[in-house]
Amino acid sequence: MSPAEAQGVGRRRLLFGGAAAGLGAVAAVGAQFAGGRNDSPELTRTALDTSGANGAETVPFYGRHQAGVATAPQAHAAFVALDLRGGVGRERIRSWLRLLSDDAASLTQGRAALADTEPELAGNPARLTVTFGFGPGLVAAIAPHLAPPWLGPLPAFSIDALQDRWSGGDLLLQIGADDPLTLAHAQRMLLKDSRAFAVVRWIQTGFRHAYGSEAAGTTMRNLFGQVDGSANPRPGTPEFDRVVWGDTQIPAWLEGGTSMVVRRIAMNLDTWDELDRRGREEAVGRRLDNGAPLTGTAEHDEPDFDAVTPLGFRVIPEYSHMRRARPEDPRQRIYRRGYNYDAVPEPGGTISDAGQIFVAFQADVRAQFLPIQERLDKLDLLNEWTTPIGSAVFAVPPGAPEGGFVGEQLFG
Amino acid sequence: MSPAEAQGVGRRRLLFGGAAAGLGAVAAVGAQFAGGRNDSPELTRTALDTSGANGAETVPFYGRHQAGVATAPQAHAAFVALDLRGGVGRERIRSWLRLLSDDAASLTQGRAALADTEPELAGNPARLTVTFGFGPGLVAAIAPHLAPPWLGPLPAFSIDALQDRWSGGDLLLQIGADDPLTLAHAQRMLLKDSRAFAVVRWIQTGFRHAYGSEAAGTTMRNLFGQVDGSANPRPGTPEFDRVVWGDTQIPAWLEGGTSMVVRRIAMNLDTWDELDRRGREEAVGRRLDNGAPLTGTAEHDEPDFDAVTPLGFRVIPEYSHMRRARPEDPRQRIYRRGYNYDAVPEPGGTISDAGQIFVAFQADVRAQFLPIQERLDKLDLLNEWTTPIGSAVFAVPPGAPEGGFVGEQLFG
Ligand code: HEM
Ligand code: HEM
Repeated sequence: MSPAEAQGVGRRRLLFGGAAAGLGAVAAVGAQFAGGRNDSPELTRTALDTSGANGAETVPFYGRHQAGVATAPQAHAAFVALDLRGGVGRERIRSWLRLLSDDAASLTQGRAALADTEPELAGNPARLTVTFGFGPGLVAAIAPHLAPPWLGPLPAFSIDALQDRWSGGDLLLQIGADDPLTLAHAQRMLLKDSRAFAVVRWIQTGFRHAYGSEAAGTTMRNLFGQVDGSANPRPGTPEFDRVVWGDTQIPAWLEGGTSMVVRRIAMNLDTWDELDRRGREEAVGRRLDNGAPLTGTAEHDEPDFDAVTPLGFRVIPEYSHMRRARPEDPRQRIYRRGYNYDAVPEPGGTISDAGQIFVAFQADVRAQFLPIQERLDKLDLLNEWTTPIGSAVFAVPPGAPEGGFVGEQLFG
Repeated sequence: MSPAEAQGVGRRRLLFGGAAAGLGAVAAVGAQFAGGRNDSPELTRTALDTSGANGAETVPFYGRHQAGVATAPQAHAAFVALDLRGGVGRERIRSWLRLLSDDAASLTQGRAALADTEPELAGNPARLTVTFGFGPGLVAAIAPHLAPPWLGPLPAFSIDALQDRWSGGDLLLQIGADDPLTLAHAQRMLLKDSRAFAVVRWIQTGFRHAYGSEAAGTTMRNLFGQVDGSANPRPGTPEFDRVVWGDTQIPAWLEGGTSMVVRRIAMNLDTWDELDRRGREEAVGRRLDNGAPLTGTAEHDEPDFDAVTPLGFRVIPEYSHMRRARPEDPRQRIYRRGYNYDAVPEPGGTISDAGQIFVAFQADVRAQFLPIQERLDKLDLLNEWTTPIGSAVFAVPPGAPEGGFVGEQLFG
């Protein structure tokens, strides 16, 4: 398929089939019939449709970096890990990545996928992004000599209780959107594209606050009720760029890309709840109400790790999560972009199966993520209530150039 | 607990701990320390917080009818079915219902639950509603002679492939909210309240378009891509009131209440996709792009069931879902308020486990729902792609009066 076809630009026939009705105005939809593909009308929002503002927002797909990393986190995300089918080699992988990229490019812009039979479900992009992560198996099948040194399972940690069903994977698709229906449709289209090439290894679905539910830019809360993400580098700053994209990437095909660690971490809400409020605040070193460090009053105040109570104890305990997680060396920082999960409890109980899909982006897993995780593994008050049950590492290629596909650089 | 306590009104201490920071303003939160309950501050949005508009919206809990029926459907819903623990009798059920009602009353207004250890997660009500449905087992345990005649499993249908794990239940909590984090928190609080009294039978989680993603009042789409809900009676009309609350309820304790049918219906997206667009439109009798009947141009046009094509075929096939589902007798109408579900596919495949949590409210199951379901069971083109895999019927008591609890009337 040519880039022009992939873009799906062309004749546009607008059918004003909608009418003001019901409790509000029915969104008028425009349908495009691409050459010969009568079954795949492309839907476009029209000027008539003013109030569904969030749904119409788009994030560019093509560019130097992949979307979904520096993008302000959407309300919903699915992490889809796929394993190559036996016998799918380099050339077929290329076709698969092109297919996925083309469809991701369309869907993120509110256009139907190539073989989309529910094109109407593509009409609300709602900041949809699709971010590709390449696991060790995928890189090995394309160009084994070009694997970055950190691409592989993390070393085992003493806190781990990893399950195979939440670990590993050849290709990761991180699909994010502010609308759950948009997300479901995009996920299905990309899974359909994948049938001939791969099988599902695992899917994890997560959420944050709904779009518009909190003031824009509010740091998310996790299911412990904590403000989570305060000390993150801020997208758009030179520091973020250095932490995430790196000054220079080795191997060179990753220039403009990054690495991604995905860990499923169970959070024991029940034992957490047994702790009093002070105990919970000390476990992290921050206040529950607004996320301020225990030595400050506002979320972004600098913590004072030396401050002591009248009795001589540290105000921010030495073993608190924040103290242990904070790198002395700013080159060891990471960017966290996780999601809450709340799975349906087993029938017969009332115990929740909840936690965090911990996601960290950093230019180099070994130089940045590992030292932090090693420190936390040794000592971190939070370990009492959290258990890593899944783990995977992916190389995140740079963005595709207009009309190209993600991972192209790896094919040399 | 007294009504005044249940309401949780009282001294309010506003802590302006937030500060303009990050990408936007951190919402300033107000914390209320209720008498002696230091661990349960109540969070209130303040005037400082202007942009998180959706999150602050509330739906009243107390009133003649329960909320969550005539309420415009929220983006997310959880259907939680619980079974009484052995030995839990009438008096303990009363305590349980009071506890659940008090916490639902608080949470829906953006206030922490009584034993809430994550009160910050209660601060964005996002139109949270909690709707109680009483299954046969619950009514039998309270006042067996007061069960409405229709309260029990539906008759078996030839299309059914019911699974126990999605069927039945003593108490149903329908929890709806526009914010998934709000929903997760409310669900957890109500499950905690339930531990001593009941166990989880099943939980079904569903979604519609995100709040603000579509123009207000836009009819939802299901995962077949269809506009779903067009022919519903409209909340706020006398017709809706008659269909849902009835002219009069027998037994009398249900006055102001209704009945609820919850059916989990699997939708085979893969075989559906094999059908061409015309076939899909004829299966329902409506257009896919805007939901108009095949004889009309706009969603709410009256269908013309007698219209024929030049070749003499009916434009809206006689066996189409709409034709078969539409009652000749307007007293047989129902109000559908369902949600999409998209469960994680089994590892190793790419086949989705998707469908609809079909929810219908009507004053009388036998007089309204049953005739429709019986007709559809006999003949409905849509049956080819849909399979009911769960089924449950609940009596929905009237709303609780201020300070009362849901189901109070049943205790006589
Ligand atoms: C369920 C597991 C976890 C929970 C609930 C959690 C929660 C938190 C919270 C509440 C904070 C303070 C606010 C903030 O800056 O975001 C924090 C900070 C942080 N966490 Fe975690 N975290 C978890 C796991 C991890 C893991 C696995 C890592 C990395 C290996 C990590 C690395 C960090 C870092 C680097 C900071 C910032 C420290 C600073 O510079 O102040 N966290 N986390
Ligand atoms: C997955 C299963 C189902 C799907 C996908 C589905 C879909 C639809 C669609 C697309 C419409 C046309 C638009 C509308 O008025 O909403 C419709 C109408 C309707 N459906 Fe269903 N439906 C399903 C199951 C059921 C069941 C189980 C019942 C009741 C037993 C039912 C009762 C109705 C009724 C009463 C109408 C309105 C008919 C009219 O008066 O025009 N549906 N359905």
